[in-house]
This record gives sequence, C-alpha cells and structure tokens, in this order.
Amino acid sequence: MTDAPPWDTLWTGAALATLAPGAPGTAAGDAYGTIPDGAIAARGGRIAWVGPRAALPSAPQALAARVVDLGGRWVTPGLIDCHTHLVFGGDRVEEWERRLNGESYEAIAREGGGIARTVRLTREATEEDLFRSAARRLRPLLAEGVTTVEVKSGYGLEPEAELKMLRVARRLERELPVRVRTTLLAAHALPPERRDDRAGYIDRIVTEMIPAAAAQGLADAVDAFCETIAFTPAEVDRVFAAARRHGLPVKLHADQLSDLGGAALAARCGALSADHLEHAGEAGLDAMAAAGTVAVLLPGAFYLLRETRLPPVAGFRARGIPMAVATDLNPGTSPVQSLRLALNMACTLFRLTPAEALAGATREAARALGLAAEAGTLEPGKRCDLAVWEIDRPAELAYWLGGGACAGRVLAGVPVDGPAPA
Amino acid sequence: MTDAPPWDTLWTGAALATLAPGAPGTAAGDAYGTIPDGAIAARGGRIAWVGPRAALPSAPQALAARVVDLGGRWVTPGLIDCHTHLVFGGDRVEEWERRLNGESYEAIAREGGGIARTVRLTREATEEDLFRSAARRLRPLLAEGVTTVEVKSGYGLEPEAELKMLRVARRLERELPVRVRTTLLAAHALPPERRDDRAGYIDRIVTEMIPAAAAQGLADAVDAFCETIAFTPAEVDRVFAAARRHGLPVKLHADQLSDLGGAALAARCGALSADHLEHAGEAGLDAMAAAGTVAVLLPGAFYLLRETRLPPVAGFRARGIPMAVATDLNPGTSPVQSLRLALNMACTLFRLTPAEALAGATREAARALGLAAEAGTLEPGKRCDLAVWEIDRPAELAYWLGGGACAGRVLAGVPVDGPAPA
Ligand SMILES: [Zn+2]
Ligand SMILES: [Zn+2]
Repeated sequence: MTDAPPWDTLWTGAALATLAPGAPGTAAGDAYGTIPDGAIAARGGRIAWVGPRAALPSAPQALAARVVDLGGRWVTPGLIDCHTHLVFGGDRVEEWERRLNGESYEAIAREGGGIARTVRLTREATEEDLFRSAARRLRPLLAEGVTTVEVKSGYGLEPEAELKMLRVARRLERELPVRVRTTLLAAHALPPERRDDRAGYIDRIVTEMIPAAAAQGLADAVDAFCETIAFTPAEVDRVFAAARRHGLPVKLHADQLSDLGGAALAARCGALSADHLEHAGEAGLDAMAAAGTVAVLLPGAFYLLRETRLPPVAGFRARGIPMAVATDLNPGTSPVQSLRLALNMACTLFRLTPAEALAGATREAARALGLAAEAGTLEPGKRCDLAVWEIDRPAELAYWLGGGACAGRVLAGVPVDGPAPA
Repeated sequence: MTDAPPWDTLWTGAALATLAPGAPGTAAGDAYGTIPDGAIAARGGRIAWVGPRAALPSAPQALAARVVDLGGRWVTPGLIDCHTHLVFGGDRVEEWERRLNGESYEAIAREGGGIARTVRLTREATEEDLFRSAARRLRPLLAEGVTTVEVKSGYGLEPEAELKMLRVARRLERELPVRVRTTLLAAHALPPERRDDRAGYIDRIVTEMIPAAAAQGLADAVDAFCETIAFTPAEVDRVFAAARRHGLPVKLHADQLSDLGGAALAARCGALSADHLEHAGEAGLDAMAAAGTVAVLLPGAFYLLRETRLPPVAGFRARGIPMAVATDLNPGTSPVQSLRLALNMACTLFRLTPAEALAGATREAARALGLAAEAGTLEPGKRCDLAVWEIDRPAELAYWLGGGACAGRVLAGVPVDGPAPA
C-alpha cells in the first residue's frame, strides 16, 4: 500500500510561459518567464508545483493521480479580459451601418440612437435575453483562452436595471466555464430621464445602487466614466466615497477623449486601474506610478473611433506603471469579441511588445482586477487556470489576426474544453 | 408512382442576401438584394431556383428530394477571399517581435530577414510541410464562411519551388472542402541569387515558369508586383505578354507604396484586377473604369504597416469601379486569417459601407477571379456555394470583430460543415 500521490494532475511536455520572469527555472532575461521543457501540477485547484520537467522530485506517475503529456504545446496563464461591457440589450449594428452610409451622428441621436438606445433595450430586455446574448458573445472569448472576464453594468442606469445586469454577469459564471468579476458602472452616463438632475442621479447611485449591489453581493468593484460627456471628477469622487464605505474597490474610465485629470483622480482614490488614458498627462502618470494604479489599454475603441492620440506608453514604461490590455467589448465603440485581436492592436497601434501585450492580458490584467495574488501567472499557490496553445512561440498569440490556436483551457486544475489530452 | 422531384435540395425559412440587388423578389433599393423570407434550391450542384418562399411553384416536399428549414437564419453566397499568399514556409513572428522590441529593419534584413527569409524557408520546406501549415491557416477562413480562396505562389522564385507552391494550392482544394484558384506570382520579388540579373530572372519567368505552370495546369492566372522595390512596368509587361500567350488571365499588385502607373498598366493589359491601389491616381482610375478592372482592397496590410494614404474609394465609387475586399493573408504584412476582419477593416479604415464590404467578399471577389458567371451571388445557374449565418442582419458580418457566426457552408449544393440542419 502506498500513499496517494500528492498532486491531482501533473502536466508535462509543456513549454511554459509563466509570465513570472525571474522565477526559479525560467530562462534568464526572458520577458515571458519561459520554462522550455516544463511541468506544472495542480492540487485542490491551485498550482502546487511549476518548473523544468528535469527538476521534478521523482517519476511523474508517482507524483500525481493523473499525468498529462502536452506534447510540446505551450501553456500560459488563462487569459484575463479585465474590461468588458459584455451584457447589453440589442446591438448598434444598424446605426453603425447608417453612419457608414453617410447619415450624421446627430440625425441618429435625434432618433434615440447611441447609448440611449442600448439603455432602452437593456432596460426592456428580460434577464434571460440578456443572459443568452451575453453568453453568445462570451463563448468566442473562452474559445481563445480566456478564463477570467470582467463584466460591467452601466446600461441600466436605474437601480433595478443595473442590478439585473450584474445578476446576469454572475449567472455567466455559474453556467459557463469561466470566472467573472462584476463591476457596478452606474456612473456610465446620465440616464435620459435625469438630464436635468445630475445631483439627483449621483444621489441615487450613492444611496441606492451601491448599497444594494454591495448588500446583494453583486458587485466586486465600482467604476465610473470621468469625461466631459459623462461625469465630473467631483461627481466621481462622491461615487467612489460611497464605494469605499461599502468596502468595494474602484476603477475609472479616465482621460479617453480629453484630459480631465482622470488618471490623477484614480490614483488619489487608490483605484485598481485607470482605463483608456489616451489623453492622460504627465502629472496623472506620476500619480499613478506612486499609487501603483494599473493602466488598462483598450485599443479596440481607439481603432473603431479612428483616434489618433496614442496612450502615453513610453511614459508608462519609464515609470514602471503596469499595462493591462482588454477588449472593452461593447456595442457602441468596441464590438471586439477577441482578446487576441486586442493584443495585436496593442502591438500594432500602440507599439507594445508582444510580451507586454501578453502580460497585459494575464499578469497585469489580474492586478487590474485585484487578483494579483490569485491569478495571472504560473506560480505555486495561484489558481490553476491555464490556456494551452498550438504555437511555436508566445509572440504568435499577438501576431496572428484571426484563427484559432487554443487547444484547451484548465479552470482550477480541471480541463474544461478543447481536445484536452487525456 | 410520381416523377422524381426536380431539385436535389431546397432550403426554406432563410433570409437571403442574394448580392444581386434588383433581381426578382429582392427588396427594392436594398444593396444586399435581400429576400426576407426566401427559399433557394440546388440541382446538380447549381442554384436551380431562388426567390421568396411564397413564390415557390408548389409545396416544398413536392419540389425537392430534401427540404431543409433554416429557421430564419441568413444565407449569403459563400465568401470568396480573392487575394492570399496562404502557402509559405516558416513565419515572420520572430522578426515582428524583434521590430517591436526596437531592432531596426536594416539589422533584421542584414541577417536574412524579410521576404528573403520566407523564400529560403519555402524553398527548403517539403510539399507536405507546406500543405500542412497552409491547411492550418485555411481552416479558420472556412470556419467563417469562405467557400473559394485564391492562393498565390511567389515565395519560391525559381521554377521548381514556384510549381511546388502551386501544387500545394491545388492539393488544398482536393483535401479540404473549398474551391481554390491558383495564381503564379513568380514576379513577386527578385530572388537573392539574381540580384544582378533582373532581365535574366524575367526571362526565366517568361520562358520556363509560365510555360510549365500552364502546361501542368497549375495556374489559373498570373500576377506581378509592380513597385519600386519589385518590378518595373516594362518588366511586368513582358510577364503579362507571356501569360497572354499561354491563355492565362493576369492581375497586378499595383500602386501600394507609390504611383508607378500600376492601375493604368493593369487596365491596359486587361487584368482581372488591380490590387492594393493606395497610391493610384486619377488617370489610373479612369483606365480601370474603361477596362472594367476590379479594385481589390487589402486593408490588413494597410493596418499592419500603419499606412496613412487611403485607397481612392470615392474615385472608385464615382466611376463605378467594382471593389473587392480580401485578407492578403501573408506572413510579412498581413497575418490575417479572417476575411470578416478584413470586412470590418474595409469599413472602419477605408469607410466602405457594410454592403460594399460584403459585395467585395462575394460578387466583386468572384469578378476579380474571373468567376462572375460562376459564383458570388445567389442567382439561378451559379454554383450553389452558400454560407449560413446566425445573425439578425447582414451588416453584422462586418460589424463584429472576432466571434463566430457561421452556422455552416454549402459547396456545390452539399452541406460541408457546421450544424447543418437536416
Ligand atoms: Zn469601458
Ligand atoms: Zn499580395
């Protein structure tokens, strides 16, 4: 009689991109933290061991109840899409087409287009409808290696509709093989019926929506849109103060279209991340660096809006500000159902290196969600969320536009899809 | 005893985007040629009937051996990718990453990077290797509705290696459910060993490569790259004259980086298409309009190279020059394995309408391949190559970035993949 082996599953024959450069066993000076001929083990859903296969303490079969040879495939941390507006009613295809056919934005807005349309359709939609359409959009993300996705509210703009969106986000996690982090974004836009009562709407967020979302455990964080067309820094401050009182971390849509000091505001409030940041100035970057705020880059919206002002990537690098990359999946400005496309756009349009882009969808994305201790790298103690890839080198994850390369995912140590080698 | 029904298969319950606006049964003034509640029938691999379901001459079951209800899904002509360099050895991921890490183009070229690298690896590759890597890149295109793909040679640059590429392209058609049109692009670049003998290389194309490709039935057309870094108009003229002598139609990479008069040259030579065209001038456009040359737009390379000079779309429209859209799938400047992404880029970057983009990947792409009588629209007599879609309106095919919507394809009247409703 022997003891049960210590590990549940041991994967061998894998090229590991640990995203933990400098960790034991990784190639020196390699930004991916590569372990060329690696092994990784799970126990109780966590990573129990990771390193070169040659460093395994004994024969694989003695170490784990199940041993899987990955045949030289690459393994990365499961990808993390840390900024999406995945849940919404209707779409905006028709008005996108009308714009391309030459109709003016004003004409479309007069007829209730734009975000007002999405708000109306989201309020009207049943929870079941919202769930089904969100699940349809989520599946392509999972098929390309995403294991954690953040989902914001922000198209309800009234208590019940905002909570409905968050319930749908929670249900996505229950019914699909993915982790979901929910964010209350009631301060996304002023709802049409409150056009003349800004303070009243902020009151409602502070006294009704945040407390309800917190009490019902529906929100993991609170977000706001700080912009001339949305909310002022002072209004955001009130929202964030309420979040703090309810123990919720905050993040901010900051400096996308103009420099309102959003980056500095996010830093001052201890936000997990400031997102977009095309117009962030030097002072904002200094504040982010001091506060440890993550910069979330969203090249999909930059691409679709044909923006020309690039986010200050050199400034982030110089200050060691972590950069995450996300899809910003939303119907109006970023109908991007591919995190890998966002990686390519981050490289092509923003000139990130492929290693920075991949770190942006793993290690730094985890940090932007407050999950740095839990996810984003292949290190002992973290959750064993993996993506397995049919590639020759990790830069391919950002290089190819379209096409599948994900050979399977592992959630908490358990293969959840793909041709998982048995 | 009754007669056998006239049709092999009849699809009903389909919203048809015929891409034949004005055809009987289509909605007036609709650029997609929509038949909202349509039916389409195949016999002997061809479209035997297409129209509103209500116009069917009798009960569906009496009309076809097999009746398939598509449950309201959309049907378009199978997509056509009319410009790819799908067959090549190796890839260019590593040098792409080195460029993004700050190394100069010159340093990489000195070490044999760029197209020279692809030529070397293509020459070294076995036919089996080339087939396998090309098939891997082709499958994502098929998964999103492509039924016909053009494949160019052009990385062999010597007779046997060019013919090897074309044989691989032919094999793709034999082994995968797709139609392939092959194009000899020996005049893609001057091979390294001919750097001091331009005329000698053109001689070889004219006296060896074109005759051999024609004799072996390996090429459906001949292409050339007319550019300061490639071949002059006079050199292209010699190549095209040889193509003519062997009965092969021609097409041209024209005016991508500078205006060498490529558009006019293509028109004068009766080319099926002139491709790229960012720098084409007014005279070239006039010549294309007079000759009926198709303009093939390749936004993937424009995107990846971060070009700023847009192709003259308004000029094409004003002259009624047909616009096709293709991936340009190639390892150096357009690693685009998604024709739908090219459609989005055509809209977002070049401001095509979604209907123009879809026509560009169906009707006009067929024309660019000399297949206008055979494919590209849903009209009686054409081959019954279809794509079936889970969408609410055809503009979605260009709107979403990433994500699958193709529910199946039909080749010559036969469902070849997808959850084909039985
Ligand atoms: Zn957003
Ligand atoms: Zn080309």
